[in-house]
Amino acid sequence: MSSAISPKKIAQSLQELWSPRVIGEVDDVFIKVAKLHGTLAWHSHDDEDELFLVLEGHLRIELEDRSIELDEGEMFIVPKGVRHNPVAEQECQVMLIERKSTRHTGEVTTEKTRSLEEQLRPV
Amino acid sequence: MSSAISPKKIAQSLQELWSPRVIGEVDDVFIKVAKLHGTLAWHSHDDEDELFLVLEGHLRIELEDRSIELDEGEMFIVPKGVRHNPVAEQECQVMLIERKSTRHTGEVTTEKTRSLEEQLRPV
Repeated sequence: MSSAISPKKIAQSLQELWSPRVIGEVDDVFIKVAKLHGTLAWHSHDDEDELFLVLEGHLRIELEDRSIELDEGEMFIVPKGVRHNPVAEQECQVMLIERKSTRHTGEVTTEKTRSLEEQLRPV
Repeated sequence: MSSAISPKKIAQSLQELWSPRVIGEVDDVFIKVAKLHGTLAWHSHDDEDELFLVLEGHLRIELEDRSIELDEGEMFIVPKGVRHNPVAEQECQVMLIERKSTRHTGEVTTEKTRSLEEQLRPV
């Protein structure tokens, strides 16, 4: 069993952008952190909700009919099946909460897609 | 579908101590916030992990063999079956992530125990 951990500090220490890392698990969900800058890809998760919590900076989550602007400390849950595209105009750090089965780029595979093994590497 | 929400602001707005309120759901888990001051009760959750993330203030989670000290922005996951007791010497705000089936005082019922209906009241 670990001790206290700081998601923000772990996210700040990441070298690679758009490469989520697992920092904990609560039953069937993973708690992840990631460092973002730029844009990922339009995608959706047919069967999984996905929570974004901004640890530092600002994130825009583009949806098909509107955009959600997230400042530090704010969160948004993308419901299952909703197409979305995260955009970080400046570097930002986020915490993600999603079922273990969730592929972070959904049904899309891009050069940014990371395997679960990569996401489970120690931080 | 809601827009951006601030867990810390919602937690700060709560009137009642030790009364978790659901602010979102990710598939089978609830995202909750609570305002704490004092101590809850020694308890465990046989089948559910429980994540504590401190939004403001400081929280100590007493375990049977040690204590975890959590400052603002720090988190700890109490594994299923592990007896624990949250202690807030000053008022603090926390985010909780736990399966929907989790009873917040575990197998124990005290005057602080809140039903799921109470936790689902709008904030």
